[in-house]
Amino acid sequence: MTTPLRLGIAGLGTVGVGVMRILRQKAATLEARTGRAITVSAICARSRSKDRGIPLDGYAWEDDPVALAQRDDVDVFVELMGGEDGPAKAATEAAIAAGKDVVTANKALLAHHGQALAEAAEAAGAVLRFEAAVAGGIPVIKALTEGLAGNDVTRVIGVMNGTCNYILTRMEDAGLTYDEAFAEADGLGYLEADPNLDVGGIDAGHKLALLASIAYGTRVAFDAVELEGIGKVSIDDIRAAADMGYKIKLLGVCQLTGRGLEQRMTPCLVPATSPLGQLTGGTNMVVIEGDHVGQIVLRGAGAGEGPTASAVMSDVLDIARGTRLSTFGVPATSLQAAQPARSVAPAPFYIRLLLQDKPGALAKVAAALGEAGVSIDRMRQYGHEDAGAAPVLIVTHKAAPSGLEAALDAISALAEVAGTPVALRIEQV
Amino acid sequence: MTTPLRLGIAGLGTVGVGVMRILRQKAATLEARTGRAITVSAICARSRSKDRGIPLDGYAWEDDPVALAQRDDVDVFVELMGGEDGPAKAATEAAIAAGKDVVTANKALLAHHGQALAEAAEAAGAVLRFEAAVAGGIPVIKALTEGLAGNDVTRVIGVMNGTCNYILTRMEDAGLTYDEAFAEADGLGYLEADPNLDVGGIDAGHKLALLASIAYGTRVAFDAVELEGIGKVSIDDIRAAADMGYKIKLLGVCQLTGRGLEQRMTPCLVPATSPLGQLTGGTNMVVIEGDHVGQIVLRGAGAGEGPTASAVMSDVLDIARGTRLSTFGVPATSLQAAQPARSVAPAPFYIRLLLQDKPGALAKVAAALGEAGVSIDRMRQYGHEDAGAAPVLIVTHKAAPSGLEAALDAISALAEVAGTPVALRIEQV
Repeated sequence: MTTPLRLGIAGLGTVGVGVMRILRQKAATLEARTGRAITVSAICARSRSKDRGIPLDGYAWEDDPVALAQRDDVDVFVELMGGEDGPAKAATEAAIAAGKDVVTANKALLAHHGQALAEAAEAAGAVLRFEAAVAGGIPVIKALTEGLAGNDVTRVIGVMNGTCNYILTRMEDAGLTYDEAFAEADGLGYLEADPNLDVGGIDAGHKLALLASIAYGTRVAFDAVELEGIGKVSIDDIRAAADMGYKIKLLGVCQLTGRGLEQRMTPCLVPATSPLGQLTGGTNMVVIEGDHVGQIVLRGAGAGEGPTASAVMSDVLDIARGTRLSTFGVPATSLQAAQPARSVAPAPFYIRLLLQDKPGALAKVAAALGEAGVSIDRMRQYGHEDAGAAPVLIVTHKAAPSGLEAALDAISALAEVAGTPVALRIEQV
Repeated sequence: MTTPLRLGIAGLGTVGVGVMRILRQKAATLEARTGRAITVSAICARSRSKDRGIPLDGYAWEDDPVALAQRDDVDVFVELMGGEDGPAKAATEAAIAAGKDVVTANKALLAHHGQALAEAAEAAGAVLRFEAAVAGGIPVIKALTEGLAGNDVTRVIGVMNGTCNYILTRMEDAGLTYDEAFAEADGLGYLEADPNLDVGGIDAGHKLALLASIAYGTRVAFDAVELEGIGKVSIDDIRAAADMGYKIKLLGVCQLTGRGLEQRMTPCLVPATSPLGQLTGGTNMVVIEGDHVGQIVLRGAGAGEGPTASAVMSDVLDIARGTRLSTFGVPATSLQAAQPARSVAPAPFYIRLLLQDKPGALAKVAAALGEAGVSIDRMRQYGHEDAGAAPVLIVTHKAAPSGLEAALDAISALAEVAGTPVALRIEQV
């Protein structure tokens, strides 16, 4: 018989409790699948006395996660505390320094310190894995690192924050304003303690930066992610987009071109009939495009006890089976520092503006677009109740982003245009 | 430096050529990802002289795949010949006997001989992997064996034969009859040499049996798959189903219950708005449901050079990285022989029948259903042009399959019912 694989689990929130439940429920199954018993030596959390619905008296308790990470009877340090610095980072570093393997669900930690931690792990002969950090239960890290490793990835695109997708879905389905949908999500406990992590796109941006690193063999560069949250998405735009056959999503896109690495997490339009357009509620979806495999779509719950614990267990079971992989798919020291790039590739855009009811107004808008080299695919002017300003929607043909910006400047300057036009990229999927 | 991983590739059809292309194009990338050079020592195919669009003179040639499998300079035997017996089986057995690892895309071989081959491989300390055998480029074997290994799988459901889905999509979109759509698919080269492998559901049944084995830790039991092809699906049913909000798919379903292992590959209805309902053309989709992860949906190209070669490479790269897994997720000798079971769980059903235009006719149908314990969710009677018989569509509430059969027998015996009623299960996803 082989020796058991002994875990030390730090953090007993939703995910930690989920992992404990799986380990307790399925000990025999997991041993059959890996050939090794998987045991928990010690645990650590903020409060020892809190009732978490599972018995904890069979496990050694540590108050300090660093001490847990260094215990002689821990082979794998499972970091489920969260936070980009502080105890999670200190304990992860301590575990690696002690030669322990690490499994973490902590996207913020890896987005900020992934390179240093991966290098340290590899120097120590330890593995550092993070399936649960991206898209909850969807095995997307495994798909990208292993399942599609025969491909050059041409694009990764996805909806990676369920809370944002929930808010956008409720705005569309129930006609709620952003503030109303936000309040509803908050009441359901969907928001992080700092809601800007969700609605500001930061959490999703962390995930995108991690996927980009694996996809392109580049160092994680979260600071280079072009970030825009959903706070400015209006019910008017959601309705107008729907009317033109699109949905608005907080969409992550990364691509490596000759100009550098493009990483965007911004509100975009996608065709309503596409898999991404059909994604409603808190579900996540990641679309991976490779030069040989074509388009692979992965969809599942992006958060929650069971799905996230399932992803943590995937990494633990790999380690139990003896699978030893580099954190980002290639040795960390060989990851390249990519040049951050803004997208210059032509794309179609959606434009919404309010036009005063004067003769020749629409012609001036059309002329401004034409002069900037932006050609119109579809345009709709709507009837209006309040005197004076009519909503106008435009879907452009593919246009260079620089041309679009020039057109928007010219349109904004027109006396006939009320307020500031809204422009959103239409992502083709 | 580690030594190269040396492949012997048997079969240079579409998939074999795709694998050779990836190996030639991406040698440096693949070495960076695995830490090992991957080389091809020798190749083997039916015709040596055929122009396949890639240079073959740098590789040793074998006429006999068994000889290829036994070469001293081959570490991994890559079997891309196909066929459930004959050379593919003989060469795979020879490779295993010689202690070589094997990567195969051959679903028929594994569906019939997977147990014996996996046992032989494990006894020889070799691995036998088959990502490319199921759902083309979708990394579904990896997802099920590794990514979701912390779950008890509650159901696997999917569209696993792109040709059938293409035919059904064309019937719906273009209003073609089955024969017309079949002829179109044939003209495009989508059909196997024996078309019954596709339209009879056999190919998809092979895939389902392999997934069931991994999902439930059971021996592959293809003979126990309840198989029904798409040959009897009529344009009338496709239209009627659409009218009621459904699509007809050749759907694979496997579930392990207290009664045994249920494996079905049959035409079913799925909600038109579900991910499976929205799947058109030759694309595949596998939905895996686990007790912790919930529902995971995987979608991608189910066939073709690039996607299938991508899947073959996934297995090759795992071996190059040193990953050693059991063929079906647990040691082959520990796989259980599952009791085959028919589904007795209540499900909603779709029924289409032709009813003669006589007073009380509909009442008799409704009474027959009620007497068998089948209650009606929705019923529509359509106007009709030809005198005498009106199409009637019924969607039942959940009903026991035995009750439905009894009701169908009673309905068929009614003098007012013309011909034989069509009944199809509605799968809830």
